Amino acid sequence: MKLNVSAQLDYNISSASTLILNIQALRTQEQKILHEEFIVSESDVKIDELTSVGGENRMMRLAVPKACKLRVNYKATVDTSYQINNYRKLTEEPISKLDPEILPYLNPSRYCQSDKLYRLAAHMFGDIDSPFAQVIALTNWINTNILYLSGSTNSQTSAFDTVTEQAGVCRDFAHLGIALCRALTIPARYFTGYAYKLKPADFHACFEAYLGDNWVLFDATGLAPLNGMVKIATGRDAADAPVSSLFGNVRGTGRLISCELAEDDFKPYYYFGNKFEGLSYL
Amino acid sequence: MKLNVSAQLDYNISSASTLILNIQALRTQEQKILHEEFIVSESDVKIDELTSVGGENRMMRLAVPKACKLRVNYKATVDTSYQINNYRKLTEEPISKLDPEILPYLNPSRYCQSDKLYRLAAHMFGDIDSPFAQVIALTNWINTNILYLSGSTNSQTSAFDTVTEQAGVCRDFAHLGIALCRALTIPARYFTGYAYKLKPADFHACFEAYLGDNWVLFDATGLAPLNGMVKIATGRDAADAPVSSLFGNVRGTGRLISCELAEDDFKPYYYFGNKFEGLSYL
Amino acid sequence: MKLNVSAQLDYNISSASTLILNIQALRTQEQKILHEEFIVSESDVKIDELTSVGGENRMMRLAVPKACKLRVNYKATVDTSYQINNYRKLTEEPISKLDPEILPYLNPSRYCQSDKLYRLAAHMFGDIDSPFAQVIALTNWINTNILYLSGSTNSQTSAFDTVTEQAGVCRDFAHLGIALCRALTIPARYFTGYAYKLKPADFHACFEAYLGDNWVLFDATGLAPLNGMVKIATGRDAADAPVSSLFGNVRGTGRLISCELAEDDFKPYYYFGNKFEGLSYL
Amino acid sequence: MKLNVSAQLDYNISSASTLILNIQALRTQEQKILHEEFIVSESDVKIDELTSVGGENRMMRLAVPKACKLRVNYKATVDTSYQINNYRKLTEEPISKLDPEILPYLNPSRYCQSDKLYRLAAHMFGDIDSPFAQVIALTNWINTNILYLSGSTNSQTSAFDTVTEQAGVCRDFAHLGIALCRALTIPARYFTGYAYKLKPADFHACFEAYLGDNWVLFDATGLAPLNGMVKIATGRDAADAPVSSLFGNVRGTGRLISCELAEDDFKPYYYFGNKFEGLSYL
Repeated sequence: MKLNVSAQLDYNISSASTLILNIQALRTQEQKILHEEFIVSESDVKIDELTSVGGENRMMRLAVPKACKLRVNYKATVDTSYQINNYRKLTEEPISKLDPEILPYLNPSRYCQSDKLYRLAAHMFGDIDSPFAQVIALTNWINTNILYLSGSTNSQTSAFDTVTEQAGVCRDFAHLGIALCRALTIPARYFTGYAYKLKPADFHACFEAYLGDNWVLFDATGLAPLNGMVKIATGRDAADAPVSSLFGNVRGTGRLISCELAEDDFKPYYYFGNKFEGLSYL
Repeated sequence: MKLNVSAQLDYNISSASTLILNIQALRTQEQKILHEEFIVSESDVKIDELTSVGGENRMMRLAVPKACKLRVNYKATVDTSYQINNYRKLTEEPISKLDPEILPYLNPSRYCQSDKLYRLAAHMFGDIDSPFAQVIALTNWINTNILYLSGSTNSQTSAFDTVTEQAGVCRDFAHLGIALCRALTIPARYFTGYAYKLKPADFHACFEAYLGDNWVLFDATGLAPLNGMVKIATGRDAADAPVSSLFGNVRGTGRLISCELAEDDFKPYYYFGNKFEGLSYL
Repeated sequence: MKLNVSAQLDYNISSASTLILNIQALRTQEQKILHEEFIVSESDVKIDELTSVGGENRMMRLAVPKACKLRVNYKATVDTSYQINNYRKLTEEPISKLDPEILPYLNPSRYCQSDKLYRLAAHMFGDIDSPFAQVIALTNWINTNILYLSGSTNSQTSAFDTVTEQAGVCRDFAHLGIALCRALTIPARYFTGYAYKLKPADFHACFEAYLGDNWVLFDATGLAPLNGMVKIATGRDAADAPVSSLFGNVRGTGRLISCELAEDDFKPYYYFGNKFEGLSYL
Repeated sequence: MKLNVSAQLDYNISSASTLILNIQALRTQEQKILHEEFIVSESDVKIDELTSVGGENRMMRLAVPKACKLRVNYKATVDTSYQINNYRKLTEEPISKLDPEILPYLNPSRYCQSDKLYRLAAHMFGDIDSPFAQVIALTNWINTNILYLSGSTNSQTSAFDTVTEQAGVCRDFAHLGIALCRALTIPARYFTGYAYKLKPADFHACFEAYLGDNWVLFDATGLAPLNGMVKIATGRDAADAPVSSLFGNVRGTGRLISCELAEDDFKPYYYFGNKFEGLSYL
């Protein structure tokens, strides 16, 4: 499916600074970049394209030599593809067979303190016998119990807060989903991307659970169809896959994100929990 | 330098379980394993040797099929080597030149919430102009202000707690050192190892700061000479490099660690802050 | 009902110190002290009997002039009395009619951060239309979901931790009950006492909710009959009604508590949630 | 000294609600209300004047029967008076002589977790031998190290956060001051009032430490002269002395506060730490 995505980011920079932006669509076997441009408003900015360890994320490092107002424009046309698998017969993946590169996604992380949620997760979801059904159940629980409320949280809010305070934004919904999965011994990671039909338009955050050798996408906010995403990055949580890391006297002053279909045909796909289907981007 | 290390770990296992142990000395160009044995007391345990992403850690995965008392014995003779560099002329590494694989060690992590310590770190150490001297200063501050007190903390204690509560064990000292470094934009990571002369003998935890293209070792506890360590693992924090991860009905019931010189000559090496020397294991 | 209670407390005192002990049975219109003795092992300890503001608690202040091993022995025979009321017809007490001295028990306190539990409490218990049934429901929820586990918590553990970590001791059960009540706009306070049939024998902590002009007793641990208590103190939480406050170089080294019937007849009384009866000590 | 104070508070009320406002100048022997008016914009609001336990605070309870926009106007002319004492010779008040009604101000409270700050307070201020000088020193430390930053904190921020995050508003400065005092075994309480020359004009929060039988006022923000305050309330912390407590569907939509001299003569009084003088309102 073809999508046009764009991000316009404005920064007020008071002295020499470095920005690391993680806003480009990921290049994978199944997510093809048909066209892409990355433009900065100042000619003396040194730009460096980086790839994270394991190759999973693309980052642009901008060395800005002096004070300025900087505008970054990113545009891309992306051809995405995903698969939908049936997990009805999936049983719990024994830890003893898990690939070592998956194991870190069982560990607690900055915003996903799964080590504090074991008993709670076991009480609420431990009796469900299929891991897929556990993730669907916890996603639904988050969707039902956590209030989506702009401005209710900040960059320090973690899953341990959200499980009790019960309000947050997409990032908080994702962190709680990840933490509950890991507490149930299901590997899970953070996913950022562009999302078709997300309102108001912005970067989106979801999570992926590792089920039956696939990273299956879940969105506890339910705010956008799962099949209208363009993947930017994955990581352990938002600390690991931030849209921007700012070093120096830099202040974000605005952003404008869009994600539109570049073709006509689109059937929105959501989970409803009555089927055992899961969607994966590759 | 040659050292003999050993670890004897006892577990009470109530049903089929998996243990992932990270207790073996790391094999690196400069740390050579002259002899090594890893023995488990039960013959039906399936053992798998894993290597973490990036190759930095060695892990043994033990699939235990049924209830038992399990004893794990590890012994090794290791030839370590380190270098001592002078950092007097080191200036701050610009973020714009940092290798992408180092960048994640600037992010906050489960036990090292550097995002909450920016102002405090800047107040206390921001005016020191050399990054090496900053790390020496913060290490000394931890050593002076945090009380080493067995049992005062638990597996959920983080740098954010320790900076105020001012008591902890080696793991807590390391987490606080890491968090303060990252808050000062100095990459830092967790280091576990065997430590000669550590009393009482146990696994030890320290931290490494990335200075002048080296990972330089710091030990805020001051409990063991820096040049008597055998490196086991590094990671973002204890969540990333745990000695053991237990899945199932497993309970640790005891451990016995040792680290002894296998040769005569040893001059203990510590930092005193009056020189600009730093020690690195490679 | 007549009960014999006793407490023997041992302290290791390294230099001049002050202890404030709140272990004496409260004197109220309905709780009569038939006999009482309070003995300390050192003759040079200056003892002061204090009454807290509002007269609700009795405290002994012990000024210990020098290092010693101090033993405190308290014994009393108490005649308690309680009433059982029916709250079936109770509707929510409008805040606009609440007595000003009750209002502080709606505020969050050190261990009962009700301000963080509003949404959670509303989700779980907000639809129950009777305040009595709400308190019964939350008490049952705590009893079912929180594991009673000695040593799992410490003196800093609060309701905000317990609601997620789901383990604790009687003090933690009481704090969570109080926090949930307050989050539902039901005044609630901490209750300490001696408890007949509590195993192992110790001081006990419960909570009282203000319903229909009475302070009604609830015990989320279910570890002792509600009608076998001897009230020592009430307060906002354990910070406000601690058994002991130690100033100086003092360390508790042991304690021995007992609470026995001084007469034959006793029918244990618990809540089961199918009746609308609540028990109050006056 | 005569001051004119006023507060205009606007609320959007969506259904029957109760508000408890604590905005009136306190009546004490030394703070005389020369003139006072309290007006609400809706005639069907039932108003109740309450006095808190111990008589220390005045509260207006407003029962609003139906949805409306409510404006509350309070105006008063107040004649305040204070004393300035010298504390050079003050030595630590032994706990063994403290009045029982002062003791609760040594306990940790919702926003002042002094139990977590013992070691830190002892390290930083424990060697100062006069309690007055300790409070001056900690007030100066807060003033120097904590950044006054509107919007940096919220109603859940506590002293435990602020000591590390080092940013906040007057309420946070006061909470940290209180927590540090209590950690040093100096009773301390929260103080709210009107403050002459505070910019921008608003309610102000400071703290009082109990020194030499007086409650001495300290303002770690340094934003207003200590002798230009009109006391509204005191309490353990902001949970205990909130300006407003809202029950029901109520939302504050604006407020306008003023505090002006009603006479010509005013010499601003601040602490500078070089004298041992402290100011008390009675």
